[in-house]
Amino acid sequence: MIKVSIVGGSGYAGGELLRILLQHPKVSLQQVTSRQFANQPVSLVHPNLRKATDMSFVSPAKLEKCDVLIVALPNGISMSLMNKFKRKAKKIIDLGADFRLHDEGKFTEWYHQKHLSADLLKQFVYGISELHREEIKNSDYVACAGCEATVSILSLFPLVKNNVIESEVIIDAKMSSSQAGMSFSLSSHHPERSGVVRSYMPTGHRHTAEIEQELAGLNVSISATAIDMVRGLLVTIHTRPKEWITEKEIWKVYKSVYRDEPFIRIVKEKSGLYRYPEPKILQGTNYCDIGFELDKHTNRLVVIGAIDNLVKGTAGQAVQALNLMCGWPETTSLTFTGLHPI
Amino acid sequence: MIKVSIVGGSGYAGGELLRILLQHPKVSLQQVTSRQFANQPVSLVHPNLRKATDMSFVSPAKLEKCDVLIVALPNGISMSLMNKFKRKAKKIIDLGADFRLHDEGKFTEWYHQKHLSADLLKQFVYGISELHREEIKNSDYVACAGCEATVSILSLFPLVKNNVIESEVIIDAKMSSSQAGMSFSLSSHHPERSGVVRSYMPTGHRHTAEIEQELAGLNVSISATAIDMVRGLLVTIHTRPKEWITEKEIWKVYKSVYRDEPFIRIVKEKSGLYRYPEPKILQGTNYCDIGFELDKHTNRLVVIGAIDNLVKGTAGQAVQALNLMCGWPETTSLTFTGLHPI
Amino acid sequence: MIKVSIVGGSGYAGGELLRILLQHPKVSLQQVTSRQFANQPVSLVHPNLRKATDMSFVSPAKLEKCDVLIVALPNGISMSLMNKFKRKAKKIIDLGADFRLHDEGKFTEWYHQKHLSADLLKQFVYGISELHREEIKNSDYVACAGCEATVSILSLFPLVKNNVIESEVIIDAKMSSSQAGMSFSLSSHHPERSGVVRSYMPTGHRHTAEIEQELAGLNVSISATAIDMVRGLLVTIHTRPKEWITEKEIWKVYKSVYRDEPFIRIVKEKSGLYRYPEPKILQGTNYCDIGFELDKHTNRLVVIGAIDNLVKGTAGQAVQALNLMCGWPETTSLTFTGLHPI
Amino acid sequence: MIKVSIVGGSGYAGGELLRILLQHPKVSLQQVTSRQFANQPVSLVHPNLRKATDMSFVSPAKLEKCDVLIVALPNGISMSLMNKFKRKAKKIIDLGADFRLHDEGKFTEWYHQKHLSADLLKQFVYGISELHREEIKNSDYVACAGCEATVSILSLFPLVKNNVIESEVIIDAKMSSSQAGMSFSLSSHHPERSGVVRSYMPTGHRHTAEIEQELAGLNVSISATAIDMVRGLLVTIHTRPKEWITEKEIWKVYKSVYRDEPFIRIVKEKSGLYRYPEPKILQGTNYCDIGFELDKHTNRLVVIGAIDNLVKGTAGQAVQALNLMCGWPETTSLTFTGLHPI
Repeated sequence: MIKVSIVGGSGYAGGELLRILLQHPKVSLQQVTSRQFANQPVSLVHPNLRKATDMSFVSPAKLEKCDVLIVALPNGISMSLMNKFKRKAKKIIDLGADFRLHDEGKFTEWYHQKHLSADLLKQFVYGISELHREEIKNSDYVACAGCEATVSILSLFPLVKNNVIESEVIIDAKMSSSQAGMSFSLSSHHPERSGVVRSYMPTGHRHTAEIEQELAGLNVSISATAIDMVRGLLVTIHTRPKEWITEKEIWKVYKSVYRDEPFIRIVKEKSGLYRYPEPKILQGTNYCDIGFELDKHTNRLVVIGAIDNLVKGTAGQAVQALNLMCGWPETTSLTFTGLHPI
Repeated sequence: MIKVSIVGGSGYAGGELLRILLQHPKVSLQQVTSRQFANQPVSLVHPNLRKATDMSFVSPAKLEKCDVLIVALPNGISMSLMNKFKRKAKKIIDLGADFRLHDEGKFTEWYHQKHLSADLLKQFVYGISELHREEIKNSDYVACAGCEATVSILSLFPLVKNNVIESEVIIDAKMSSSQAGMSFSLSSHHPERSGVVRSYMPTGHRHTAEIEQELAGLNVSISATAIDMVRGLLVTIHTRPKEWITEKEIWKVYKSVYRDEPFIRIVKEKSGLYRYPEPKILQGTNYCDIGFELDKHTNRLVVIGAIDNLVKGTAGQAVQALNLMCGWPETTSLTFTGLHPI
Repeated sequence: MIKVSIVGGSGYAGGELLRILLQHPKVSLQQVTSRQFANQPVSLVHPNLRKATDMSFVSPAKLEKCDVLIVALPNGISMSLMNKFKRKAKKIIDLGADFRLHDEGKFTEWYHQKHLSADLLKQFVYGISELHREEIKNSDYVACAGCEATVSILSLFPLVKNNVIESEVIIDAKMSSSQAGMSFSLSSHHPERSGVVRSYMPTGHRHTAEIEQELAGLNVSISATAIDMVRGLLVTIHTRPKEWITEKEIWKVYKSVYRDEPFIRIVKEKSGLYRYPEPKILQGTNYCDIGFELDKHTNRLVVIGAIDNLVKGTAGQAVQALNLMCGWPETTSLTFTGLHPI
Repeated sequence: MIKVSIVGGSGYAGGELLRILLQHPKVSLQQVTSRQFANQPVSLVHPNLRKATDMSFVSPAKLEKCDVLIVALPNGISMSLMNKFKRKAKKIIDLGADFRLHDEGKFTEWYHQKHLSADLLKQFVYGISELHREEIKNSDYVACAGCEATVSILSLFPLVKNNVIESEVIIDAKMSSSQAGMSFSLSSHHPERSGVVRSYMPTGHRHTAEIEQELAGLNVSISATAIDMVRGLLVTIHTRPKEWITEKEIWKVYKSVYRDEPFIRIVKEKSGLYRYPEPKILQGTNYCDIGFELDKHTNRLVVIGAIDNLVKGTAGQAVQALNLMCGWPETTSLTFTGLHPI
């Protein structure tokens, strides 16, 4: 059994890590830290884990050595603590934004602050297994992708790799309330947040930087709209093919890249209710579902991607990387199929 | 008092017409037809109207002469009945799609059927008062716009009129379940429809034809996504300015066109929760709220528009046109401000 | 025109008062106070009122004399300010809990604090017009009922008055999130509040005291469950008839009491989707819908009542009382019929 | 491996059976029948199972022999087919209502039809493992309980067994849309069903008969209200203690009965957001959460129970019984802990 500890376990990402790792046959959960909830039972904050664990949170000051440390802290924190974390564990998986961008300048440009551990940036592998499987296997440090970046990159990667689309890409993202984490405000107050179609970030989304890093050459515009959904993320991506292409050929492009991927499903059905990716049925799963449709009227290609932002977009992605880093089957503890109806 | 009758009053548009016209000080509601519910009380189908009216539906065969006929039938029906309707009333407002397009060929192209009254197409004015106020005042026949076309056209019109944007326009529409009317199916079954982010029409939306007709020169791609909302419609429109422009200049463009419009609000706030248009607070109102944001990263302009699809997008638009056609104040019976919270 | 000012206008009740009074033909809105938002536009907090008003909030310290003062402050505040308010206006309508109970001891028992203006308690009339119409007409001080008490009292009043039911009454209330007002917390955070069926007050609801005051002899148990609804309130009331009775006779009891009431509808249909009261279609209206069903298996009588908690349960009730106090038609500015679908 | 087939696999219960059994280490799924979808892939109807299985439905006529047959047909069907099913498999688990009641007369009274296999009624064990564990282990025929009966019986059983409460019990049930299955109608149409608090069965719920059978001596009144929830069920049960009792004593009563139950959790917290049972966090799990509160004002005891109607209320309950019937650990394939937030 490998000893895994979680730093920052009281947030939503921490809760999902706990849920998945408590059932992982190779992992012994050692410690879960929380400043706010130290010494209180994990199930106070994550009530779904009642009866599944009687662990309590420990103060960050009491963090002990372990085999793998998974860090689930707000953006901007882990970069100041990373050297300390490296003395606690040989392998580290970071879920925040601090170590995703390899270029220090890009970090400053998009996060409007100086990077406090810029020398470590090159040590981290970007955590999307479908793009960096071999690097992750051989790495000790992984920075998991942002949820919005994850689904966009996975949806576009085969098209970019095969030179199918022009560089201008517009990503229209439909976002859920759990993406903002547990910090509440009037804007997350139920009477104000329920039923919204809120253009909370029409331009300027910071995941743009990750996407442009991973899919070099693209010029990305993201518009993010928050809708009445707790968990889930769908992107409608508006692209233009470089040359005339058929849907059958696009299908082949996706299949050639993703044929053996356990967590990618190409969803483009002629019948049934779920003809395109739908985040509703992905809740709790590590799937990324991808579909597409050609617009004959304007010669555009619409690509649709969906994930559970807290699983494939965060905690599941981390466990997938953990499985690779430890040499276990990649799908270990990630086989939940999702619920229908829900 | 002007005598108004409604043909097809048992649908959602019919219900909204009834709600608005029952409180209209100049209108005497004469008849409301319904094949399915003939002789049954209006409030059986529209329970919000209990105590507000004791009218019953009449069979279409019993339609009498009146001053104004408002037709709320499914697409493809009114074109076969219009000559009959013209013998019943001097003025006709049609809510369906049959008489919106002036070009018979475009109708065939987008609706995949032959037009049965092509000779009448030129007699109808397109029903958006903000674009065709004077024509509507002087017309006897008005074809109200589709809901998705209404909000898109109103959002883009000042930009096109002032030559601000390039011709390629991508409209990402977030749609509600009432837009499909009262015909139920497995796809509208609550366990399947609740919580969806369903890409039900990634390409090929028929309102494209109306938008391209009204905003000549544009090349429009619509992607429509159904979300968990009963009433309301938001479009996120992705455009590119022809030349470098500031947000202040864009603001002036909108103000110059819409300064005196009673139902248009430019919504672009620096603070508060409702900084951009939000359909949630437009339920029941005849407003079209419009906002915008420049994307400095990619030099694009994102325009956001919101309406209540059943009011400004259908019944309210019709009553606004009715008020113009009859020489009444344009806002008569359309002053409901909407609810907050909701 | 009568000059009306609102104290505490930035909450949800204040917003509804504004919405209703801005369209009231006899009322001139003079001032709206808010500590937090003084000098800021009303529409910042109540975005539905954009274009309907350009009023700004004033600091409470700047409150001027007026004809009628409507007080919408959190519970426990107005009792310390009432003497000051009485110097500002001849007529006062209070929306909080402070002056609802005539018995000082009951106030202390249920609110766990000493009443600071106990001498004024007898001056206030309880604000449900259907029970106290003549007293309200002749009174200068009205204390509006709690929303949960309003719908329960109106649902039960004819049964109690006609001696139909035994004294033990169980009220199972389904509550919405707007009832808690604008104060946000983790419990109102969208990811935690959305989709709940939360037994937030299985026993001990403070409105019990009001109900037992108005319906003397009843012994009331309330269980309150919060559901995923922003606005609206439904009570399922479990009672036992004293003697064998038919549904037809119960119908007569309700009709005998409520026949001429403009805002009460008895809803008990044999067909249609809305056979019983449904808060969904009451949003924005001042209606209280009431239905009932006899349980032959156990000889019980189930009574169902629904209102919009912010209208009939708060602001609409206040305006109804205002209309009576000023000698205007009782329904003035309260005729919105509600939306369907919604 | 035991060969299991499912009759009626295209409904929601069938889908959940498939989801759970596809991951069951001791079960080989042999056939899944569906009249409507014969020869079509299972994932067309249950899109969450894409990639998890490539099984197709078979026509009921092609049902082969197997070890265990699980029957998930609409009420009233299996009683006419049971003798046929008994020739196909030694063990049968029926999810419908036909074999739940031991008394033929009660079946006729509550289902308003004659039982077509009354001679078989006595062969079936009622499928709640917590009450009938030993009988289920030794039985070949199990009839799973109705979802509403399941949560009510489990919530009340310790109180009845220990003689704590009087016989009159009022169950106020909050129901979800999946309980009605996949048959759609205008009443399940999203614009009509979304946001409802619909008193769809104020009296006369048929599960009354099951509850009174299992908890002899009780006199049960159920009022069922449908709310805007796809999956989940909460009951608020209003009871009266026979004698003065403390909450601590009630706690002991529950613990004495349920201490070792793997799927029962007593939820009654002093802090946190989830202080009482909450169906929201039970989606996909086999838990039944139970809480309670004494009402000092009226000396009543409110009991609260929550389940996922499709798991503990249907498919999970069936697999729990299957595990017992086959001598496997009772929790096999039922350990999903549920999601938070959701």
